[in-house]
Formats: sequence, structure tokens, C-alpha cells
Amino acid sequence: MKAAIFHASKNITIDDVPVPELRAGAVAIDVAWCGICGTDLHEYLEGPIFISPAGHPHPLTRETAPVTMGHEFSGTITALGDGVTDLAVGDNVVVEPYFVCGDCAPCQAGNYNLCTSMGFIGLAGGGGGLSEKVVVDRRWVHPIGDIPLDQAALIEPLSVGHHAFVRSGAKAGDVAFIAGAGPIGLLLAAVLKAEGLTVIMSELSSARKAKARETGVADHILDPSSEDVAARVREITGGVGADVCFECSSVNAALDQLFDAVKPAGVIVVVSIWGHPAQIDMQRLVLKEIDLRGTIAYVRDHPATIQLVHDGKVDLAPFITARIALDDLIDKGIRTLIDHNETAVKILVHP
Amino acid sequence: MKAAIFHASKNITIDDVPVPELRAGAVAIDVAWCGICGTDLHEYLEGPIFISPAGHPHPLTRETAPVTMGHEFSGTITALGDGVTDLAVGDNVVVEPYFVCGDCAPCQAGNYNLCTSMGFIGLAGGGGGLSEKVVVDRRWVHPIGDIPLDQAALIEPLSVGHHAFVRSGAKAGDVAFIAGAGPIGLLLAAVLKAEGLTVIMSELSSARKAKARETGVADHILDPSSEDVAARVREITGGVGADVCFECSSVNAALDQLFDAVKPAGVIVVVSIWGHPAQIDMQRLVLKEIDLRGTIAYVRDHPATIQLVHDGKVDLAPFITARIALDDLIDKGIRTLIDHNETAVKILVHP
Repeated sequence: MKAAIFHASKNITIDDVPVPELRAGAVAIDVAWCGICGTDLHEYLEGPIFISPAGHPHPLTRETAPVTMGHEFSGTITALGDGVTDLAVGDNVVVEPYFVCGDCAPCQAGNYNLCTSMGFIGLAGGGGGLSEKVVVDRRWVHPIGDIPLDQAALIEPLSVGHHAFVRSGAKAGDVAFIAGAGPIGLLLAAVLKAEGLTVIMSELSSARKAKARETGVADHILDPSSEDVAARVREITGGVGADVCFECSSVNAALDQLFDAVKPAGVIVVVSIWGHPAQIDMQRLVLKEIDLRGTIAYVRDHPATIQLVHDGKVDLAPFITARIALDDLIDKGIRTLIDHNETAVKILVHP
Repeated sequence: MKAAIFHASKNITIDDVPVPELRAGAVAIDVAWCGICGTDLHEYLEGPIFISPAGHPHPLTRETAPVTMGHEFSGTITALGDGVTDLAVGDNVVVEPYFVCGDCAPCQAGNYNLCTSMGFIGLAGGGGGLSEKVVVDRRWVHPIGDIPLDQAALIEPLSVGHHAFVRSGAKAGDVAFIAGAGPIGLLLAAVLKAEGLTVIMSELSSARKAKARETGVADHILDPSSEDVAARVREITGGVGADVCFECSSVNAALDQLFDAVKPAGVIVVVSIWGHPAQIDMQRLVLKEIDLRGTIAYVRDHPATIQLVHDGKVDLAPFITARIALDDLIDKGIRTLIDHNETAVKILVHP
């Protein structure tokens, strides 16, 4: 079968690889659609990062590059391994693409997203969604009912937004301010709207502002190049400030604006991955009693996230900006996201 | 009566001022003891900071410098204003030294310590504890039963530690790691021990390490100059890391160690006032899902704090390192704390 294989930085090829064997406790899935994630771009440009390099096998999968890529995918079950009795052949599913140890302190505390040996299907080995078929342990397979398979491929990044929402402690009626309207900022906004919040976004890029407008996920879209966004947030909130803020830009100036825009005793969740340290105003953190919280991936978020989509509270269709074949992964997928990353939100690959 | 009056930076004098008049809803207090706070030192060296300068009256008291100083004090009620029926002349009390507006969003949300007009008795006007007598609204007066009046003067800074504990969300059985064994670090440690936590402290100064040892507030005292304190914390916690960390040093290198020493999904509370921005490792904040929380002063903490002292769970006597007369405030009080700040913990003034 065909699969996108990471060999090294700038060296991802579509290879012919053996079909994975079904094992007890797992299910075989024909992949329908697989999204390309920012993480995949970083692996392509500068990898291996999360992928284990030769000589350093992943502690759980024991694999190193070359590995199959793709961790945002949907598909249909084609076979059930021994002991799997609560799913059926033909079920449409998505995958929560984890390998976790189950033994470390975070796993024991229920925070398996913080597992000290954690790996992702599609990065750490075990196959991936950028291939025709994949075999995944039952625990990580979530049925999606009648959600269209193309939209379902976005449930993984939507779960990242859902987990950020959970981490924030926000509730219906609250006002959220999101800095950055890239793919994760937009999907997070969709979750917040679905959960009954008022959503304010700030974004420099015109294309991304247009996308935020078009998808209807934001009640207010601010432009940091032409207005004092923190002052605008205070104005919108009657002088109080936002209940919760989300940092989705990795830009220090944007983080500073969140410190200014958040209400006293408010929460700022850092969603984006920073490649550099941040400088923060500790005086303000202390005197406003701000909570600055990290969030990574998802933990028990998939069922609630799937429910939001199933109930029509989140419409994922507008976030799909292209559909391509696996053979076009580099030219029409990865290169497009690198070169035109302000207009492309989510490119889906059909293996 | 005599009172310590702040006129300007380096200009605090012991002046003769009128006795404050009792008003309805307030009580008159003969001050027994008043501690000198780090804030007082900053006002002396670089003020006015929290004190309102001439021409800019405090929004609630309408006062500017010159003002009476002192906000960590105990005393005995000498008279009750109209309408005060639940206290008695002769009661020993401490004061939660606030002025708050009651109307702003934080006040309405119950976070009166974050009041947008907040002021302190002893800084914002309304008299202070570094004087013979003071009149305080009933709301801010807390009876202390038979707690000795000298120890009671430390209940205000102990409440700062109690609030930091509350902000951390820690519970009995947790392991806490405190960076910095200055007065607030030590009093916080005393609260944490009283609440049933294991306490690890790190401190560079030998004198402060000795004080931590002498007061028995720490189970482990680490020296960042001679050992990898984060590695030691992990060793002590069986590889897990501290449940909660407290930053009481304003030193970036110490904050970095807390990011390293805290467990995944752990909490770091910033207690100290920073005069400069901090550089923080956002990658670690995100991938460990750390909560970095500011804490300031206290809100509804006094009753629980008084109870800890009343029940003998916190012994405040060892933290009193000197007792002086009001006339000696500058020479034996403020100058001693500035010049010998590693050996002096809390100097009490008897007006």
C-alpha cells in the first residue's frame, strides 16, 4: 500500500509499504482523509523533532525514522482484532493518535497527554494517517456516527481547541479573547462559540481575518496594526476585560496584549508552541492575579468534541481549504502550507 | 500622639499628630505592635510608590503624602463607633488594612484584593499602625482572642502566605517547593507545614537557611549554589516533581528551577514583587501544562490565618528578630532591614 514516509528533513516520499497486520485489541482502518498539521511542516522543514532519529528508538514503539506520517485522520473500520466487541466493521471513526505508557506519574494521575514517554501515531511509528491503511488499539478509536469523513479529519485539531477551552475553565456567557487566527485559533474559536462564549479575535493577516469573518466563529475581529486591541477588548466588555484569553500566535507582543486585555483574576491559556522564551510582565501577573496556563493536545476530549460536531454546533466544512491526493502531498500540500500559510487553513489528503 | 509620617523618599519622621476621631461603624484601636514590611522599605528608599504623591490624591481616601505609615499591626480596642455591636472595648485585634471601592468588577466578583482603586491603611492615608492610635472600619477588624499581641502583628504577612497557599490549590500531603527564604517565604512555609504539606526550600543566603532550619518550617533546605535543586526535588518526590511551587525571590534563575522542579500539570505561584520582566520557557509551560499564577495580598484569609495561630499550628515567635521603639524606627528598624536584610526577619515597633 502507499504511505508518506519521513526519511529526513526535506525528504518525505510516497513509498510502497506492507499493509499493517491486525492484532488483538486493535482495529484495522481504511483511511478516508488525513489533515496536514503544523507539526508535519516542522518535521519536513527541520525534522526529526518529535520523530525519533536513527539510533534513538521511541521508548514505546521502539521505532525510528523512516516512519509513516499523518495524525489527523478519519476512516472506516475494515476488521476487528480479537477482543474488540463494541465496534463494528463499516463504522466510521477518528483516532486519538497516542502512544502512552500508563505507568508514569502523569499517566497515573489521568493526564496521559503529559505521559513522560508519550508519542503520536504518525510521528513516533505505528503507521499513520498519510497511508491507505492503519491499525490502531481500540482505546484510541472513536466512532463518529454520520459525521462526514472529510470533516471528521478535523476532529483531532478541534480537540486541541476543546482541551484549551477545558484548561481555561471558561463557561457559557464568558468573553474570550484569542490572539491569532491561524488554524488552531480558528478551530478554538469554533469550540468557544459552540460552548456559548462571546469570541473576540485579533489577527494581523488580512487573509486570516477574512477566514475568521467567513466562518462566523468570531463576534469581533480586531487588527493590532491599526487599533489598541486591549483597549477595544475593555470597551467591548464594559471596562472589565476578557474572562479568558488564548495565545495562538507565538508572538510576544500579542502575549503582552493578553496581559493587558484579561480581567483581574482572569486566565490566559498558551496554546501555541513557542520556539523561543517569552518575556512576561510579572508585576501584572501578580497584581492582577493572572493565571497563565499551558495546554497541550487533548485528554479525554474526543467524545465531547465529536458531540459538538455531531450536534451541528461546530461546522467544520468551511475550514477545509483543499483536498489533494497522497501523491501530491509535498507539492500541493506541504509546500502550499509553507508558501501560502495565510490562505490555507486545512488541506486534506485522500490516501 | 506620635506617628511615623512619610513626607518623601528618605524622609520619614516621627511627628506629633492629632488623635484620629472615632466615626460610626468604626473602632478605635491602641496600637500594640507594628511590623516593618518590605513595602515600607521600598517607600523609604524610592517612594512614593503605593503612597499617593502631592496633587494625586488616593481615589478612596482623597489623601496624599504626608501620610502615617504601618500596615502590619495589632492592638486593643478602646472605643466602639455607633452601630458596632459585635466587638467590645478591651478586645485584642488585628487589622486587614484595606480601602476598597466595593463597586468595580473585581470587588463585585468578590476579589476585593484586586479592587481597581485599592489602597492600604498605612500607605494610602487613613492613619497607620506606626502610630499610637488608629481608627478602622469594623469590616477590617479581626479579633484574635488570646494570641499574644506581638505575634499577632505578624498575622498580616502570614495572611499573604495563606492566600498564596489558597491560590496554589495545594492540599495536605502535597509536596511544596519554595524558592527564597526571606520573610514571606518563611511565613508561607509555616502556613504550608500547618496545612500538612511537605516543604522544600531553596535559598542562597546562609543566614536565611539557618533561620529556616531554626524555625522548623522546612523539611528540606537546598542550596542552589552547591546542588541541582530541581534534581534534588525530583529525587525527594520519587521522580515526580513538586505538586506546587512558590516563587519568593524575584530571581529569574530561581523561577527557571521551579519550571524544572514542578510536576507535569503542577502549579507555580508567583508571590514576590518583580521590578523587572521575567523570561520564561514557554515550551515547558505548554508541554508540562504548568499553571503560573500570580497572588497578591489576601482576600478573606484573615479568619483562617488567625485560627492557625490560635490553634498553635503556626508559632510566630521565632520570626520576631527585634523589638524597637517608634523613635528608633529609622535607625534600628528600616536601616537594619536595608543593611542586614539576611538576618532580620521581622522587626516589631512599639508605638
